[in-house]
Amino acid sequence: MNTIKQIVIKNGIEAEELKNFMGKKVTLHGSIYKIRKMSGFAFVLLRTKRAVVQCIYSEEFATFALEELVEESTVKVEAEVILEERSKVGYELRLLSLKILSKPLEEAPVVIHNKLVEASIDTLLNYRPITLRNERERAIFKLQEGIAGGFRKFLAEQKFTEIHSPKIVQMGAEGGANIFSLNYFGKEAYLAQSPQFYKQMMVGVFERVYEIAPVFRAEKHDTSRHLNEYTSVDFEMGYIESFEEIMQMESCMLKATLSYLKEYYQKELFLLNISLPVIEEIPTIRFNEAKELVAKEYNRTICDMSDFEPEEEKLLCEIIERTTGSEFVFVTHYPSSKRPFYAMEDPKNTEETLSFDLLFRGLEITTGGQRIHDFKEQVDKLLKRGMNVEDFQSYLMMHRYGMPPHGGLGLGLERFTSKLCNQNNVRYATLFPRDINRLQP
Amino acid sequence: MNTIKQIVIKNGIEAEELKNFMGKKVTLHGSIYKIRKMSGFAFVLLRTKRAVVQCIYSEEFATFALEELVEESTVKVEAEVILEERSKVGYELRLLSLKILSKPLEEAPVVIHNKLVEASIDTLLNYRPITLRNERERAIFKLQEGIAGGFRKFLAEQKFTEIHSPKIVQMGAEGGANIFSLNYFGKEAYLAQSPQFYKQMMVGVFERVYEIAPVFRAEKHDTSRHLNEYTSVDFEMGYIESFEEIMQMESCMLKATLSYLKEYYQKELFLLNISLPVIEEIPTIRFNEAKELVAKEYNRTICDMSDFEPEEEKLLCEIIERTTGSEFVFVTHYPSSKRPFYAMEDPKNTEETLSFDLLFRGLEITTGGQRIHDFKEQVDKLLKRGMNVEDFQSYLMMHRYGMPPHGGLGLGLERFTSKLCNQNNVRYATLFPRDINRLQP
Repeated sequence: MNTIKQIVIKNGIEAEELKNFMGKKVTLHGSIYKIRKMSGFAFVLLRTKRAVVQCIYSEEFATFALEELVEESTVKVEAEVILEERSKVGYELRLLSLKILSKPLEEAPVVIHNKLVEASIDTLLNYRPITLRNERERAIFKLQEGIAGGFRKFLAEQKFTEIHSPKIVQMGAEGGANIFSLNYFGKEAYLAQSPQFYKQMMVGVFERVYEIAPVFRAEKHDTSRHLNEYTSVDFEMGYIESFEEIMQMESCMLKATLSYLKEYYQKELFLLNISLPVIEEIPTIRFNEAKELVAKEYNRTICDMSDFEPEEEKLLCEIIERTTGSEFVFVTHYPSSKRPFYAMEDPKNTEETLSFDLLFRGLEITTGGQRIHDFKEQVDKLLKRGMNVEDFQSYLMMHRYGMPPHGGLGLGLERFTSKLCNQNNVRYATLFPRDINRLQP
Repeated sequence: MNTIKQIVIKNGIEAEELKNFMGKKVTLHGSIYKIRKMSGFAFVLLRTKRAVVQCIYSEEFATFALEELVEESTVKVEAEVILEERSKVGYELRLLSLKILSKPLEEAPVVIHNKLVEASIDTLLNYRPITLRNERERAIFKLQEGIAGGFRKFLAEQKFTEIHSPKIVQMGAEGGANIFSLNYFGKEAYLAQSPQFYKQMMVGVFERVYEIAPVFRAEKHDTSRHLNEYTSVDFEMGYIESFEEIMQMESCMLKATLSYLKEYYQKELFLLNISLPVIEEIPTIRFNEAKELVAKEYNRTICDMSDFEPEEEKLLCEIIERTTGSEFVFVTHYPSSKRPFYAMEDPKNTEETLSFDLLFRGLEITTGGQRIHDFKEQVDKLLKRGMNVEDFQSYLMMHRYGMPPHGGLGLGLERFTSKLCNQNNVRYATLFPRDINRLQP
């Protein structure tokens, strides 16, 4: 019998620490990202966890031949950190010795080591395991880590408890036909469209809860905004006095997260040339007013008074940015007919709900609102909608045995990331997208 | 148009801060957890986000009648914090005024406000939205938050990048029949049994990655250890020199997480009466030796030389704890026949793999190992197993275009939580369990 020791884990030197080793020999590992032959020497770019490190190969110092290096081989190298004022980073990394750990079978069919991967979106996604190795492609997902991390940090500070709710469910929460079904040991089951029912139940337990997890929508839309599986950032909070408190919480969450990115993800923000939006006070506008404003401003006919067209969301954002400087806008009081059965209606006008969407750079990134907490009110609404109350017994348990006034929201992580990165298709901010045509890789 | 202000969010006073308000009036909100009538006064327990706060009701001070209070109603109260040396917390909370926010329709059919919920596991789970309101029941999940939080903190420090991989997939990663299938726009698709393929691909991108997300297993076992959906903590790391590095990483992760719980979750550890295991050096034993050790020590016949029986895992843990004091044990070198096609075989003996399980208090909580990174080696193994290489083209892309030596593991969050809480059924540590008979709530 042996033992596994609690050693201090050796990470090796991180690229970010190299400047502390001036004049010293260091050992680095990584993938050979790009070899650029010059006259008499070569630049060898090494891709590490978070950086691409430029090394200099010269026969004079190296104990190996340049020909031994192949792009996308993985290596361990010994190098010397030499002061070099002409370099952007202030030093030069002179390659000394080489150990090859693995070699690719062949050259990648897509060039991944240029500034951008020059390929159609289909090719980019078909070769995702490779194209993600591009410095900028992967930076999008490092930044996405930061967004989720910023949300979590903020929500923990605000005393939200993280939960893990089931994704295989007996009832869809959002209604409609856009739900995947599966055979669950002979019973029909579904993939959760949202953690709605569960996060509400957990408000009765922890008062404030959140979850960052996949949700599934069987929508047949093939657009730049739709995914059939995405990562939903959901929070739900009890003891609210108005649904505006949820919007305030989201404003603060977004603001805190942008600061978090500024502090810890400068590298990716710089690489992707992102200027973070500034959040001071997010403008709010009622749904009806927004519809009319867009119609008037752009001389458009309103086709559907009960919902937004994507084009209207874009135009509304343009107006708001022009008139207030804000890239975000809350649209409130959506029509009851377009909101789910659990949405609380405005007591002043039951045709409208105490709900909101948040639009950012022309795209809806959040839907939220206050929920019904009273048992009778919820049952009545189910009945009014012709829904079968029996089906919702386990959901209604919380209302029956007491729930505080509460509400919450869901934010699409990929949508927010894509807009933050100024991408025009949500797939660019989705690691391995699932859409009506895509199930691979 | 209005604006949503960046106000400082008012959380109200947290129960933990009450002692700072000695002699002052405070406003609190929460659920009425329990009312205990005494002679001339009453104890009123208020359930808040993380605490149960004891208040004193007396006609002398209160502006409302005790009869107005109903258990599980949600309220806002004004109270005075009075120095009281006989109290455990050092003060007494004297109720002054009351605002009722909501009332339950009826009394819960399960008594939830005693120390333990006295109910069968089926009743406990059938009434989950209510029984989770029990102070100890919910503490298990607060602790689970801490476990996931501790893992994340450690992995971020070790430069792992968090990823979100798809759960609807075209190919199962773990083989076998225990996979849920669904109709994906006319194509057959599956629910991911693990993020295996994707985390490996992402090692080619970020070198070190992790994911904490749901996985799905269509296993027909109805045992205390099996769930059909659970939360898997997966990490995968590149540039390893041996599979022992993965075990070292896990040891350090567990150690760091236990410290994290000690620092931030003392309240729940105390409430649940948990003594955290101590990790110094985790013993390791080879699979073959472990089988023989258990057979010899307990005079058992070995029925299956290629796998562990649950009883053997229990007995092995007993021996290890007795002889070394450790509640954890790594079992290494599992037979190739029992490991998936991507497991790397031991070059010294190809009947065995460079893999391990981690057992904790009698239960397997982790499976991990080194993976094949060479294209030809992986294709050969697929062929040897009679598998169709064509099916794995998108998985093999990373091998084809270059991968570092790598490996990783998956840890069952609910299993680890249940064992840490000394529960004998994993369902006790699962928020809303899914098993062969349970799809609700």
